[in-house]
Amino acid sequence: MPNSQPSASSNLSVDQDRLWRSLMDLGRIGATPKGGVARLALTDLDREARLLFIAWCEEAGMSVSFDAIGNIFARRLGRDPSRAPILMGSHIDTQPTGGKFDGCFGVMAGLEVVRSLNDLGIETEAPIEVVAWTNEEGSRFPPCMMGSGVFTGKLDLDETLAKKDGSGLSVGDELARIGFQGKGSLKDHPVGGYFEAHIEQGPVLEDEGKTIGVVIGTLGQKWFDLILTGQEAHAGPTPMHLRKDALLAAAEIVRAVNTIALETSGTACGTVGRLEVFPGSRNVIPGRVDLSVDFRHWSAETLAGMVESLNEAIVRIGVQTGVTIEIIPTADFPPLSFHEDCVRAVREAAGHLGYTHRDIVSGAGHDAIFLAEIAPAGMIFVPCEGGISHNEAENAAPSDLAAGASVLLHAVLSRAGIAARRS
Amino acid sequence: MPNSQPSASSNLSVDQDRLWRSLMDLGRIGATPKGGVARLALTDLDREARLLFIAWCEEAGMSVSFDAIGNIFARRLGRDPSRAPILMGSHIDTQPTGGKFDGCFGVMAGLEVVRSLNDLGIETEAPIEVVAWTNEEGSRFPPCMMGSGVFTGKLDLDETLAKKDGSGLSVGDELARIGFQGKGSLKDHPVGGYFEAHIEQGPVLEDEGKTIGVVIGTLGQKWFDLILTGQEAHAGPTPMHLRKDALLAAAEIVRAVNTIALETSGTACGTVGRLEVFPGSRNVIPGRVDLSVDFRHWSAETLAGMVESLNEAIVRIGVQTGVTIEIIPTADFPPLSFHEDCVRAVREAAGHLGYTHRDIVSGAGHDAIFLAEIAPAGMIFVPCEGGISHNEAENAAPSDLAAGASVLLHAVLSRAGIAARRS
Repeated sequence: MPNSQPSASSNLSVDQDRLWRSLMDLGRIGATPKGGVARLALTDLDREARLLFIAWCEEAGMSVSFDAIGNIFARRLGRDPSRAPILMGSHIDTQPTGGKFDGCFGVMAGLEVVRSLNDLGIETEAPIEVVAWTNEEGSRFPPCMMGSGVFTGKLDLDETLAKKDGSGLSVGDELARIGFQGKGSLKDHPVGGYFEAHIEQGPVLEDEGKTIGVVIGTLGQKWFDLILTGQEAHAGPTPMHLRKDALLAAAEIVRAVNTIALETSGTACGTVGRLEVFPGSRNVIPGRVDLSVDFRHWSAETLAGMVESLNEAIVRIGVQTGVTIEIIPTADFPPLSFHEDCVRAVREAAGHLGYTHRDIVSGAGHDAIFLAEIAPAGMIFVPCEGGISHNEAENAAPSDLAAGASVLLHAVLSRAGIAARRS
Repeated sequence: MPNSQPSASSNLSVDQDRLWRSLMDLGRIGATPKGGVARLALTDLDREARLLFIAWCEEAGMSVSFDAIGNIFARRLGRDPSRAPILMGSHIDTQPTGGKFDGCFGVMAGLEVVRSLNDLGIETEAPIEVVAWTNEEGSRFPPCMMGSGVFTGKLDLDETLAKKDGSGLSVGDELARIGFQGKGSLKDHPVGGYFEAHIEQGPVLEDEGKTIGVVIGTLGQKWFDLILTGQEAHAGPTPMHLRKDALLAAAEIVRAVNTIALETSGTACGTVGRLEVFPGSRNVIPGRVDLSVDFRHWSAETLAGMVESLNEAIVRIGVQTGVTIEIIPTADFPPLSFHEDCVRAVREAAGHLGYTHRDIVSGAGHDAIFLAEIAPAGMIFVPCEGGISHNEAENAAPSDLAAGASVLLHAVLSRAGIAARRS
């Protein structure tokens, strides 16, 4: 009965053990002694992981191609070849001390969806594709989200190929060396929709005991570098009242960033992640401090207000401490709402499958942010242990990962359409 | 008239231009483009400076020797060879980005005193010696005040000779290489007194318009390393209320150290000079911060109270932030009072010569601190521009330096005694 339409309420789900095994097998490539993964973009280890992923895709009957920045697309044909494919994916490169799940889960979940569709004998209307975006982490070659940025035209291909790592090797040379510099681009690759499953990388789902995060959008981000210039002086002979201590001013900035975020309602985040002290000697009053500020909020207007508060704090702290404070904007991403159809598809899938869920805003950047610019896009979050990510200790429960992949299966089917199911 | 006793009020003074020329000539060895000096201990440049100093001493009729740690002693004979010599000196090694005056002034002032005594035809009762202590800065080979520490028995000779620099070269090997490993020690080198002239390395004299600082002692110092352990997490997806931000706790510590010093009366100093953030990435909440705390005070009891306040702050901040804070003592020097005779000799000389002066406590460590353990010792401070030291911009006025050297001349004569003066 090739045309039997399963009802929307069919209780389709993925194979939890197979998904987990794939994640563990992939995690062996670049495994670290502490249980994490160090598999930086365009290294030999990245190549090995790409080849394993491609072998699995071909085993699952998909045809594989890659584009000019090395993004890998594995296609499962649909009934209607004229329809643009629905993409599922994420990335398989990692941080230098990364984990087994960040990125890899989204790609392996996509593969597991295809394997499950094969098991269930389901043909979709639109083609579906599993995609592994190149260099999402940006650890070896900045910027992050490089592959999806080039694919969606947000980053220039030639400029990006010319980017170099710390040892002077370029993206283009390394792509060619590992054999993944292709020709394709968005022009000859329409996209009908995009879903990305990902570990939350934060503690909210775990904290509230929820299995699925229905990602409604991403926080806006405003990043700054601050340069604080005081007066370097000997720590012994310089009385407190004659000092211009750049680190004391920096400490006030750190507090202000924290206070501004705490006093702003809702999803506000404020972080000083980088802070360097010069000369950094225990008996010298710091003459200069460089630090970064990272503000995030769901509302563009509130985010602008946070920056205004920071500027007020800078003036106040400068006067108090006698330290000169320069502020330099370094990044500015507006808040993004995912496509309402995609968000609804994820929410309904979670509800239908009986998983506890909540709407959630992603605080981190993801390839889905760029994809949302060219096609309807959505994301699915699952809890990760302690909210820990970008860390070798990153962990997630097999059942939560399978739940996320099952939600992905339903969301993709809702968008691709079911053409036929083996009886 | 070989036995004519000059009155105590003789207006002896040194040659300002000659002193300045010697400082400038010495400052050419290891000169930096920014006008400072980079002449680290036991380098070829240190050797060159030592040889120049020795040549000058021999020209001035002194006999030169050096001991097992490379301290150089240049002796001018006195009438009574049975008396222990009165020493004047400091050091000629510098910080990596040091100046022309820190240390060098004390040695060149001693040399200028001898040259002036020669000009004036004055014979002293006791011998006098100009000394250049090895590696006072400790920049290349910790600890600081190495030469005076070994000479006075505060540091073990063999352990000190085994200390290595960043590239694995030892003090002993480098001393031998530059030809300055001698045999002498304190046992065969009694000391009748010690005077050290030095730039203030702080802004007090300049701020108050005083020419001479009569150093009555040195601040006690208590140094600590703090290790703050929070939870490294992604800056986006981690809500403020679920964070354990090690840098936020560190900022509170920096403020507390500053507040404790400000709220403690008098000469209290509190400094965080070193602060390192891990992982130090702009979008990662810091999981660990290492920092140093340097407390100084003239009263041992008050100093202990400052540490008690810090310990209270650590408990409070730990509870507030959820960050674990470990405190490790790294150095503990009690306050020191210089010998009352030496302090009086300096004060009387300054008054006699008509220089504005004030009693002052040294906040920094100096070779005089070790010397004070084995002999009556005192120090003379002169202003330095902006209080800046350990910096290529270090500067001092020729007239202030000459004033300091003239005070040194009188102070040394008061201790060594005048045997004869050419009529």
